[in-house]
Amino acid sequence: MSVLALIESIFMILCALISFSYCEGDLGCFLKSAIITVVVGGILFLITKNHRQEMHKREAFLVVSLVWVFFSIFGALPYWIGSYVPSYTNAFFETISGFTTTGASVITDIESLPHGILFWRSLTHLLGGMGILVLTVAVLPIFGFGGMAMFNAEAAGVTVDKLHPRIKETAKRLWGIYMLLIALEIIFLMLGDMGFFDAVCHSFGTLASGGFSTKNDSIMGYSPYIQYVITLFMFLAGVNFTLHYFAIKGNLKKVIQNQEFKFYLGLIILITAIITLTLILKNHAPFEHSFRDALFQVVSVITSTGFVSADYTAWPSYLWILIFGLMFTGACVGSTSGGVKILRHLLLFKNSILEFKRMIHPSAVIPVRYNKEAIGKDIIFKIQAFVVLYFAIFFASTIVLAFLGLDFISSMGAVATTMGGIGPGLGKVGPVDNFAMLPNAAKWVLSFLMLLGRLELFTLLIIFVPAFWKNQ
Amino acid sequence: MSVLALIESIFMILCALISFSYCEGDLGCFLKSAIITVVVGGILFLITKNHRQEMHKREAFLVVSLVWVFFSIFGALPYWIGSYVPSYTNAFFETISGFTTTGASVITDIESLPHGILFWRSLTHLLGGMGILVLTVAVLPIFGFGGMAMFNAEAAGVTVDKLHPRIKETAKRLWGIYMLLIALEIIFLMLGDMGFFDAVCHSFGTLASGGFSTKNDSIMGYSPYIQYVITLFMFLAGVNFTLHYFAIKGNLKKVIQNQEFKFYLGLIILITAIITLTLILKNHAPFEHSFRDALFQVVSVITSTGFVSADYTAWPSYLWILIFGLMFTGACVGSTSGGVKILRHLLLFKNSILEFKRMIHPSAVIPVRYNKEAIGKDIIFKIQAFVVLYFAIFFASTIVLAFLGLDFISSMGAVATTMGGIGPGLGKVGPVDNFAMLPNAAKWVLSFLMLLGRLELFTLLIIFVPAFWKNQ
Repeated sequence: MSVLALIESIFMILCALISFSYCEGDLGCFLKSAIITVVVGGILFLITKNHRQEMHKREAFLVVSLVWVFFSIFGALPYWIGSYVPSYTNAFFETISGFTTTGASVITDIESLPHGILFWRSLTHLLGGMGILVLTVAVLPIFGFGGMAMFNAEAAGVTVDKLHPRIKETAKRLWGIYMLLIALEIIFLMLGDMGFFDAVCHSFGTLASGGFSTKNDSIMGYSPYIQYVITLFMFLAGVNFTLHYFAIKGNLKKVIQNQEFKFYLGLIILITAIITLTLILKNHAPFEHSFRDALFQVVSVITSTGFVSADYTAWPSYLWILIFGLMFTGACVGSTSGGVKILRHLLLFKNSILEFKRMIHPSAVIPVRYNKEAIGKDIIFKIQAFVVLYFAIFFASTIVLAFLGLDFISSMGAVATTMGGIGPGLGKVGPVDNFAMLPNAAKWVLSFLMLLGRLELFTLLIIFVPAFWKNQ
Repeated sequence: MSVLALIESIFMILCALISFSYCEGDLGCFLKSAIITVVVGGILFLITKNHRQEMHKREAFLVVSLVWVFFSIFGALPYWIGSYVPSYTNAFFETISGFTTTGASVITDIESLPHGILFWRSLTHLLGGMGILVLTVAVLPIFGFGGMAMFNAEAAGVTVDKLHPRIKETAKRLWGIYMLLIALEIIFLMLGDMGFFDAVCHSFGTLASGGFSTKNDSIMGYSPYIQYVITLFMFLAGVNFTLHYFAIKGNLKKVIQNQEFKFYLGLIILITAIITLTLILKNHAPFEHSFRDALFQVVSVITSTGFVSADYTAWPSYLWILIFGLMFTGACVGSTSGGVKILRHLLLFKNSILEFKRMIHPSAVIPVRYNKEAIGKDIIFKIQAFVVLYFAIFFASTIVLAFLGLDFISSMGAVATTMGGIGPGLGKVGPVDNFAMLPNAAKWVLSFLMLLGRLELFTLLIIFVPAFWKNQ
């Protein structure tokens, strides 16, 4: 953890360099934040120096959970010290929203911020989206800690095709694909006349499926070309990165045959078609505009990015209820997206149909098949338990937010969007509003939910179970 | 089925006698309805006379599903022929709402109806609540059809402690307890100065956990004594009838040790306390009135009865969101209540906690325990599949209703209340409104959902699965 704090301070210095190059006033706050982070990290490093021990499952779970909190506590300093976000609650919310790649914001005038702060904001996405995952998988083993156990903890029940048996190699390849896609998006955005700085920030937000923009109205003001480019890269960020690797290696068959990918693509086409048709027929909007708005919003929400190019809450209600539903699907496993993930839905959908066959033939063993392989009942069982818990937490949290003064629809929207790591919600926290006016207690609850969703419930909740702390 | 039609016509004749005794104009419509039912039933009986065969699992599923539709098609006739409910869609909705013991109504001026129609309305509850269950279990075997297979179909995955190995004896005992409780409630209501006719109708509505009242404002206008009596009997109707049997036999230990019963009682106490406190502190209402309103509404919704003594949608939003949550709990298995049922929630709740223990000790076998017995993973698996499907159908139906023009909250309320068999919903279909103004298409969707909820999803849905129709 102390090593990670030192790494975080390096990124703060990077932002300080940007402030310096733009000659803006946020230079000091980055230097102060970096110094605080280095000092605290250094003290922790020295204290724990002689108490190192082998990392077991319990420690792995703890690090995976606490590292996000740790990063956010320090990451909030630049906003807070520079008074860009005067309340520490708000600064923490903005930071954990960045690191968990949610993209829910409490800043009302984004365009008034200096470049350093804007870059820090997007950098939290870059680090969060895949950075921290890769860091904990690739960096920690250098210090002699076990990595694979943690990777399993992160994946929580759903197995990812292993790219390479050695975790360091895997991490490097994921990192490579990630940076390659970011570089490509920057180039494509600049071809559409977006400035270099904005192109970098938006690319970080896209590939991390984060959603922080450098503009107050997100992507609304940009040209159709820019919107299509961002849509494409949001879509790519929602694909299992293992498939990108196969695609780069020329193994397209593996991509086309992947059932989760097909389901992901099919769902986007279906919902986009419904929305496009409705916008044309009911709102009499022109075809291209309707299609672009529909596709952008669908891809943005399903991949849990949360960029906005149109206000979906102004659409007919059954359309934004559909969008609300997408907050629970998420994109593919092994991508940077949040939420439940398509694979889980797909397996449960298949299982529901098989349940009827099992009723008709009670003695037959009928397993769920995915990519032609039989999936054990134990895995389906765990996925069901996950989904049931997800909805139970969703409902309980909605009541808590309603108790804190939000109306029902805003509560549901706020909980769904933070648990799913999207950004914009419904009602008062819709795409053209933000989270600034919520009571502080609600912001802490939502911060917790962002982390809970990002860590797929069990990884975080297990540290609250007494049995976890008993000697094993 | 033809035999059941003949039985239904007998009940119509009973209503005709009531019309006759009150000298009201609905006499003719009952006689006409009875004649139509007898003729159609008779023709069916003669046609199928020489085609009888042993009843297997498939036929059992079909009968269990179709009998409700069959009864409702004929049961709608008295309302329709007499123009008390001029549209057949509305008449069908009212009837299936009665038979499924939902209690959602499309009649705006109930008090203007003649006694015969009011009695028919309550009679559909009596028959539906447990009547049809007992009929299909006790009457059909007389005609040589298998009964136990059907009882299993009705219970859909959750096993009920068998009262007696012989199904006919079981049915008789359930029927006896049912009638005993109805008789007791009639006496208690009459002691509170309710007239005999109203007492009978309200008792039918209570024990069937239905909710049709003879008054426009349901139970609001009655005295506190009457409200407490109805609360008590709604509570009893939500208890597993097997426990009533044990209680009557003096085996109270079995009742007290039943974990579902304890959870049911605990949940009612908890939610009632939260609501009572809020009403006192926020609305400055007097204690007894707050407590009575809270208890009545909580018990009414959790048992899926749907009587109303206060408008919960006028309460602070987090309170009616809690009430909305109770629409998904239902009461105990083996009662007349609808919805998911407490037992399923209890087992999934226990399983969620054990999932964490299983993460800590991956190789240990840790079963869910209920009433000290280990529950097989297969049963938990089926319950999870049920709950996941329940929420999937809930969400999909909400979108359909929103598409048909309802706002989001009304859609959710209408779907939740019909699937759970309660009656009042949220928003425009709240406790002081009714379902009359919905578009016809919405009424057919909701009619289907009532049946779907009553038959616990799988029993009804299986007949839409192609594999069900294949030769076995």
